[in-house]
Amino acid sequence: MMARKAAIIGGGVIGGGWAARFLLNGWDVAVFDPDPEAERKIGEVLTGARRALPALYDASLPVEGSLTFHHDLAAAVAGAAWVQESVPERLELKHKVFDDVIHAAAPDAVIGSSTSGFKPSELNAEGHRVIVAHPFNPVYLLPLVELVGDYEITHRAADVLETIGMYPLRLHHEIEAHIADRLLEAVWRESLWLVKDGIATTEQIDEAIRMGFGLRWAQMGLFETYRIAGGEAGMAHFMKQFGPALAWPWTRLTDVPDYTDDLVQLIVGQSDAQSGHMGLRELETLRDDNLIGMMRALKRTGSGAGGVITAHEARLRDSAAKAAGPKPTGA
Amino acid sequence: MMARKAAIIGGGVIGGGWAARFLLNGWDVAVFDPDPEAERKIGEVLTGARRALPALYDASLPVEGSLTFHHDLAAAVAGAAWVQESVPERLELKHKVFDDVIHAAAPDAVIGSSTSGFKPSELNAEGHRVIVAHPFNPVYLLPLVELVGDYEITHRAADVLETIGMYPLRLHHEIEAHIADRLLEAVWRESLWLVKDGIATTEQIDEAIRMGFGLRWAQMGLFETYRIAGGEAGMAHFMKQFGPALAWPWTRLTDVPDYTDDLVQLIVGQSDAQSGHMGLRELETLRDDNLIGMMRALKRTGSGAGGVITAHEARLRDSAAKAAGPKPTGA
Repeated sequence: MMARKAAIIGGGVIGGGWAARFLLNGWDVAVFDPDPEAERKIGEVLTGARRALPALYDASLPVEGSLTFHHDLAAAVAGAAWVQESVPERLELKHKVFDDVIHAAAPDAVIGSSTSGFKPSELNAEGHRVIVAHPFNPVYLLPLVELVGDYEITHRAADVLETIGMYPLRLHHEIEAHIADRLLEAVWRESLWLVKDGIATTEQIDEAIRMGFGLRWAQMGLFETYRIAGGEAGMAHFMKQFGPALAWPWTRLTDVPDYTDDLVQLIVGQSDAQSGHMGLRELETLRDDNLIGMMRALKRTGSGAGGVITAHEARLRDSAAKAAGPKPTGA
Repeated sequence: MMARKAAIIGGGVIGGGWAARFLLNGWDVAVFDPDPEAERKIGEVLTGARRALPALYDASLPVEGSLTFHHDLAAAVAGAAWVQESVPERLELKHKVFDDVIHAAAPDAVIGSSTSGFKPSELNAEGHRVIVAHPFNPVYLLPLVELVGDYEITHRAADVLETIGMYPLRLHHEIEAHIADRLLEAVWRESLWLVKDGIATTEQIDEAIRMGFGLRWAQMGLFETYRIAGGEAGMAHFMKQFGPALAWPWTRLTDVPDYTDDLVQLIVGQSDAQSGHMGLRELETLRDDNLIGMMRALKRTGSGAGGVITAHEARLRDSAAKAAGPKPTGA
């Protein structure tokens, strides 16, 4: 079977993660990024992914596809079954990229955007047929991809994403920042207030997350966790208990912290104090080891990401068996 | 060494979790709760904890302390080194409890409140010396306890919490809902909007959490994760990239959803559809197995909860060795 081809437009942390995810699952990957450093940067993401992704599975990944870099967007896109845009979050830049992609792409190619915030109706304001395919860093390990847009295209896209071990979550209504980033933005904003007001440091906030509810959210989400917290009376009891708090001053509801240099310096300085003793690659390796260990632990119960791994292992074994050809029958 | 005594005032999900945490770490526990069902309810939490907590460690927990139930608050509190209040979130009720506790407690007893929202200055408006000691469900497994209040008392309290395997996070400034619940409230509010507006179901929101950022937050928090996401340019780059989004309509910034019966029924109905095929005990067991598996995985790198486990194992082995007496020396 000929390898399928994915075109990666924009080779930063996210684009590099997509490249690694496709490549290690046997796809050919063609990268377009005008940054002269793109090849080196993607190479470093790949080094991490080559170390991490095989460690997630008790089945062999297929032979890697080929990786090519292109100075010409059309050459990268030609013949691709999937085109993934991961350029900076500027709508006019994305529109320009889609114009170029559409002219070069096969008519049935899935064109996905990694956008954190834009809605399909914004991406397609100029008549494109792009869907949102929003992944999470590290893209080569975390399963989630939010899919928003045309019903038929997101349906096909979901099938493709499963073949590279991901978890497509199809949303049926578009909204700025989709789902996950709305939740992240709410936490981010509240956290910036806590730091700005001198209530807590970045390190205290991180510990408040990972020593408590972060662990819960890696295996069940918000609602299932609260259903349990309601005890024998369940979700209705939980709502009764905490519903009224919505009107209490538990968050800086009506206000956004000013994005000033002072705030940036405060956050950057605290982040350096917290994590500056480790280099970027060291932090990435630690994160990946943790994610692998936790996801493998979830495999034992089949919860969340654990179930996604088991399903992908079955797929990998099935493909390997098919590639090996039919077994001889009889004696 | 005589076992130390903890008094548990209020025996719901949280009080029961505290009782289990102390008891399984060798403390005597005295419970006061007027609910005639309290003994049965705490018994069920204990069954879960007795199954889960020993599975977290590669060292033996001490012999369990004694568990007693009291109809008289003063009897429960007498001689306790730690008194933990976990009654419903009504300030006048808490004040009443503290009045009774203060009269019966030893002068140097730590008096902690499990309050999710109240500040120490509110708890102590009537001249008490209560600190906030805010734990996370399941209390017998999750390490985090937010400590807020008097410097000297929270310092002593932190030492005690470490001896029962917890992670005390001392906050130096009081604020409504402390840290973690402010972040949780932000996510909760945004999630209720998403459900109310028909954008997403409770199940979609849960998957958007546990298949992506939930996994990240179980091992690093928000800021360390974003530091890595910034790539080679780090936190400053991340701030530059996502700072401006603060002013975009990524959350329902200025608004709180009305807490109506319709909203409650919508959430409860979706939660039933999502999780109703599993009973409460079944969900708890699944959650606990997942938490244990993930925390043990984190032990391998020493990150977050993994480091807390390793430290407690050393403590448990040390105590066991002391209890066994001095080893014979020489041949």
